Amino acid sequence: MSGTLYGVGLGPGDPDLITLKAARLIQAARVVAYPTLAGGTSFARSIAAGLIAPQAREIVMDVPMTPERAPAQTAYDLGATAIRAALDAGEDVVVLCEGDPFFYGSFMYLFARLKADYRVEIIPGVSSITACAAAAALPLVARNEVLTVIPGPLPDSELRARISGSDSVAIMKVGRHLPKIRAVIDALGLTAQAHYIARATNAGEVVLPLAKAPDTAPYFSMILIVKGADPWL
Amino acid sequence: MSGTLYGVGLGPGDPDLITLKAARLIQAARVVAYPTLAGGTSFARSIAAGLIAPQAREIVMDVPMTPERAPAQTAYDLGATAIRAALDAGEDVVVLCEGDPFFYGSFMYLFARLKADYRVEIIPGVSSITACAAAAALPLVARNEVLTVIPGPLPDSELRARISGSDSVAIMKVGRHLPKIRAVIDALGLTAQAHYIARATNAGEVVLPLAKAPDTAPYFSMILIVKGADPWL
Repeated sequence: MSGTLYGVGLGPGDPDLITLKAARLIQAARVVAYPTLAGGTSFARSIAAGLIAPQAREIVMDVPMTPERAPAQTAYDLGATAIRAALDAGEDVVVLCEGDPFFYGSFMYLFARLKADYRVEIIPGVSSITACAAAAALPLVARNEVLTVIPGPLPDSELRARISGSDSVAIMKVGRHLPKIRAVIDALGLTAQAHYIARATNAGEVVLPLAKAPDTAPYFSMILIVKGADPWL
Repeated sequence: MSGTLYGVGLGPGDPDLITLKAARLIQAARVVAYPTLAGGTSFARSIAAGLIAPQAREIVMDVPMTPERAPAQTAYDLGATAIRAALDAGEDVVVLCEGDPFFYGSFMYLFARLKADYRVEIIPGVSSITACAAAAALPLVARNEVLTVIPGPLPDSELRARISGSDSVAIMKVGRHLPKIRAVIDALGLTAQAHYIARATNAGEVVLPLAKAPDTAPYFSMILIVKGADPWL
């Protein structure tokens, strides 16, 4: 009997926002796996650190930061091979995923490699979008409003069209794209409805009106634009 | 000293998907509040039932099901008044919210009434969108893909434009709008990429290709359309 692969969402960073199910699975895990970026520490592992058993085996996938795809593909290939060995030996493997596994998560690369051959269970997690809305005390969507989730790296013209065409907007992966995104929002006259949130629920959390946001943003930053969402009184 | 108002997200229904923080707040709560719909039972209360202390006081807001707004407004007015009394007496109040409080949640009506006068803390919850993606084993968005969240009651023409213009789509509140939504998706040639999920993570969960969905859907049902999201291998 092969083991089960668990893709476990850990939420936005505060270990207190881990679900009961995720916490139980991590505490019981004999094998955990997670990515690191270019030899750095793992954000996912840091969220779960207090729950990982001392005797658990850890499979680390170090993903290099290069513009080419091949080196990252190789990292996930190697990780999938190590996970296969554990599953084939009948061990369950808990993959630690910041946020939610299927929402811009690197777990999708492992899922694509392993789903055909093993039982997989996904544990959804609190996404950074609702965590940022909570941190900013900002109701996000109500009634029949539309929410669009947009990655910050998209080109200006697409950002402009999507931001203008939605009631509420979450712009992910802001990072170094902040000046470009800010220019688009300014040009649309929406700066007063835009909020900047960095490192939501983590140490160093920042919540500011976009007009007061710093010039450089960390990778884990988001802009929320809410045009409506103030429910009738 | 006034008490604090907590808007506590409970996730999609499985009590195991409550966060550690939400569980702790509910267990410690001396006053909990939640809405019921037209005299029915409260879905939010049912999710949290195992955590509510026997001696906790419960503030119930019964929201009538009418096309007019005024009766529901009155229900939230009455609820806010009862919550004010508890907060003014120095008690914290935990409002139980299915899903996430700021994502199409009725908590927003209480927040609008009370935010100016009290300390409010929002605890984000797992949203039905990622819960449905997990139940359907369906990666939702990857890399620079765009996700649009659309309420099912919107008119055909708007549904059509928004569905055709996004990489991934989550259609909420499907219920009695299923035939209309299905016709739009069929006309766009996207039926093969569309998935129907009802009561995700709850008793009676249903996950089907849209082509095999039943003719009538419960209120808590969703359609996910994923055109991309299969990450490079």
